[in-house]
Amino acid sequence: MNYHMTPDQFREEGKKLIDWIADYYEQVENYPVMSQVKPGDISRQLPDSAPESGEDFSTMMKDIDQIIMPGITHWQSPNFFAYFQSNNSFPSILGDLLSSGLGVQGMLWATSPACTELETKVMDWLVDLMGLPAHFKSTASGGGVIQDTASSAVLAALLAARERKTKFSCNKTGDNSGLTAYISTQTHSSVEKGIKVIGLGTDRLRHIPVDELFALRPELLEQQIQRDLTAGFKPFFVCATIGTTSSNAIDPIKTIGEICRKYDIWLHVDAAMSGTAAILPNFRSHFEGLELADSYAFNPHKWMFTNFDCDCFWVADKAVLIKTLSILPEYLKNEATEKGAVIDYRDWHVQLGRRFRSLKLWFVLRHYGANGLRHHIAKHIDMAQQFAHWVKTSDEFELLNEPPFNLVCFRHKSGNEFNKRLMDSLNNEGKIYLSHAVLNKTLWLRMSIGQTQTELKHVQEAWRLIQESANKSECTPE
Amino acid sequence: MNYHMTPDQFREEGKKLIDWIADYYEQVENYPVMSQVKPGDISRQLPDSAPESGEDFSTMMKDIDQIIMPGITHWQSPNFFAYFQSNNSFPSILGDLLSSGLGVQGMLWATSPACTELETKVMDWLVDLMGLPAHFKSTASGGGVIQDTASSAVLAALLAARERKTKFSCNKTGDNSGLTAYISTQTHSSVEKGIKVIGLGTDRLRHIPVDELFALRPELLEQQIQRDLTAGFKPFFVCATIGTTSSNAIDPIKTIGEICRKYDIWLHVDAAMSGTAAILPNFRSHFEGLELADSYAFNPHKWMFTNFDCDCFWVADKAVLIKTLSILPEYLKNEATEKGAVIDYRDWHVQLGRRFRSLKLWFVLRHYGANGLRHHIAKHIDMAQQFAHWVKTSDEFELLNEPPFNLVCFRHKSGNEFNKRLMDSLNNEGKIYLSHAVLNKTLWLRMSIGQTQTELKHVQEAWRLIQESANKSECTPE
Repeated sequence: MNYHMTPDQFREEGKKLIDWIADYYEQVENYPVMSQVKPGDISRQLPDSAPESGEDFSTMMKDIDQIIMPGITHWQSPNFFAYFQSNNSFPSILGDLLSSGLGVQGMLWATSPACTELETKVMDWLVDLMGLPAHFKSTASGGGVIQDTASSAVLAALLAARERKTKFSCNKTGDNSGLTAYISTQTHSSVEKGIKVIGLGTDRLRHIPVDELFALRPELLEQQIQRDLTAGFKPFFVCATIGTTSSNAIDPIKTIGEICRKYDIWLHVDAAMSGTAAILPNFRSHFEGLELADSYAFNPHKWMFTNFDCDCFWVADKAVLIKTLSILPEYLKNEATEKGAVIDYRDWHVQLGRRFRSLKLWFVLRHYGANGLRHHIAKHIDMAQQFAHWVKTSDEFELLNEPPFNLVCFRHKSGNEFNKRLMDSLNNEGKIYLSHAVLNKTLWLRMSIGQTQTELKHVQEAWRLIQESANKSECTPE
Repeated sequence: MNYHMTPDQFREEGKKLIDWIADYYEQVENYPVMSQVKPGDISRQLPDSAPESGEDFSTMMKDIDQIIMPGITHWQSPNFFAYFQSNNSFPSILGDLLSSGLGVQGMLWATSPACTELETKVMDWLVDLMGLPAHFKSTASGGGVIQDTASSAVLAALLAARERKTKFSCNKTGDNSGLTAYISTQTHSSVEKGIKVIGLGTDRLRHIPVDELFALRPELLEQQIQRDLTAGFKPFFVCATIGTTSSNAIDPIKTIGEICRKYDIWLHVDAAMSGTAAILPNFRSHFEGLELADSYAFNPHKWMFTNFDCDCFWVADKAVLIKTLSILPEYLKNEATEKGAVIDYRDWHVQLGRRFRSLKLWFVLRHYGANGLRHHIAKHIDMAQQFAHWVKTSDEFELLNEPPFNLVCFRHKSGNEFNKRLMDSLNNEGKIYLSHAVLNKTLWLRMSIGQTQTELKHVQEAWRLIQESANKSECTPE
């Protein structure tokens, strides 16, 4: 007697689910992009306790269709332009399915050597493919690891930086006195969260003002560092961004990197969304200076057809990271680790357990090939440029800036309230989904173009809907 | 022109992969459990750069078979008894496939309401199903969230405890002076790692001695707390364990909880592997006192047929956790959040992004039903008791203790060196896979019985192999 699903049932239900997913992608355009449910709508349709007896898989899938799907915001819709894209692809889904199926734990090399060695290899591939500094490779002083998110990557960077600056004593004594960190006013909130996590407190985080393009002003960074040094602080960490969340601003990495070297400060570069653009050689000028970074992260789960979670994180000096995070309890001791012949990725992040995440990234890289990835990324950027051109040549709308990559920030000329109403009405209508940013008290609409299935016709239709909705709205120009 | 895999190709390759996975589970017994490759064996078979042109999916699957599979340690084998189990099931794989396919981001309620509401519901179900304190429910003061791992759960607990004790000032000032934390000498290494991460340093972590069953001695805990208070320290955190990693020891939760209440200390209870046993009412005495815990975690991805990652983490007072980790940048502001009508799980852990993890847990709970889960968990424990009985009645082997759940610690009477050799020879032979623990300088073999497909015949055969291998080994009894 057992209650397990048999392999034959799995074959049958699995194939139906594969069809279900293919059907979903064929129909996803027809759903309202933003879920239209109200708080509690899903919850109240679900029973209050787990079933006593097992249920049929078909019953569960019926609930998916009837209860769950109305509560889904369709990130995979070609009409999803909000926040940042989180683009997916069939090869990635298959790689992730294989990972779920194998169910291996990659905490140590020894607990599944292929899980570690494939990850190292794929991370090395990306260094070449994207023109990243060669010392990020595992065969040099550095190395790459797949983290879950850019938040976890910046946390790992903060910890390594803290330990390097305190000569690995904070891990022992907790003495972090005087350490100060630097970001711009536009840096992602994950750094502020990380500063809290590592025990520094936000008082020790300096927000450096930005220029008219919302990029960190390096001369003000250096002035702040000097003021802090004079006051007895110990500057230890700078996070620079290639493609900020709000407006895709690009901090001057090279100048910032030189300042960091001068003052012995860890430079982390966050390119969570925009990092994918480095696959195009003609966009690499935005990445100039990356060779001065101590760590770097970008997310294939945003803009490189790889489903969540997959953040790629590299360090220039792996020894510092490993010394910061290494713990070796008796039950994990093994010959390969003790000989130092292998990488044990548990020492590269907070978590101990880890799944076989490199499979999906490997499948994406091999399915598309470098050619295919370059083609699609270039096309996304091109569509964004076209959208920007339409905005620029319209009478009613204006652009924040020339978009460097695939995020267009724009607004109707009728003021914040109007733009907020315009966005809400578009999102509630459900044909497209946009989000917003506030910069210098001005509300801008964000159009992030990069979903897997987004074609020019979707961008054209979005622009038509935006104009139509604006014309319909009652507004008093400011 | 595009390079995407078409829905029809996905249907075809996806169904083949479903069959591949079903085949894998039908054959997994035939593989050597522990991968037999040497460091570098996988890596050197992989090309040094990403392909320029896309490749066929069938080519990729051929490489899976020929290059990757020899580098897999088969955690899903019924003969895997090492570390802790990480048991998987077909319903879980299907739930995870659906999550990969939908590709939604659950960072906010608004970014996919179903992702949040299903998670809350399933976490509430588990409270009842496992007899956990009712105040852990979202409808009361508490609430549950799915974290990736128990390491991340304890990190969240440490942070909330730190902030509660410092009246939420450490997040701002970084002043954590005098805070001290308490674990036993047997507590999982993730707490030590977490103490480093949150900036306290290991000097502030007290290792309390254990009794003859390797459980924390509460009277020594209280003495240490009093010494620390006298010395001006501020005790803020205790981690107690139900089922330690090395020997499945059970700390006396109730007594520890009373001490924590008396001194206003956050009590986190870690039941990462053994927590699943609470599904059986007759094992709940081991969980007595849990109502005094401020937070609690167990991992369905270890022993509840749910594939990695899925750690269930509850807090008694969600307001403290949220206040500790909440960050609300402009671009994430939305009506539902501002009205306070919803849960935004990004404020319950370090990461911002999160996938739809509750689907797989929901599928497992519904497929098996409470009945089915109780049946299989009871069977695992029963097999462990039988194995323990064989050990106890043998002349050559001895038991560490009566196993409370499904982990049997035992050894040949011929000493550490002999047992190490015995383990290595069994693991290298590949028919079963064991790991070890060192307790009071004595090496014990760990037999963790709980893989999905493990039946009594596998446990019997393991015992036969262990005896046979011991008889073959040259040994000089100590």
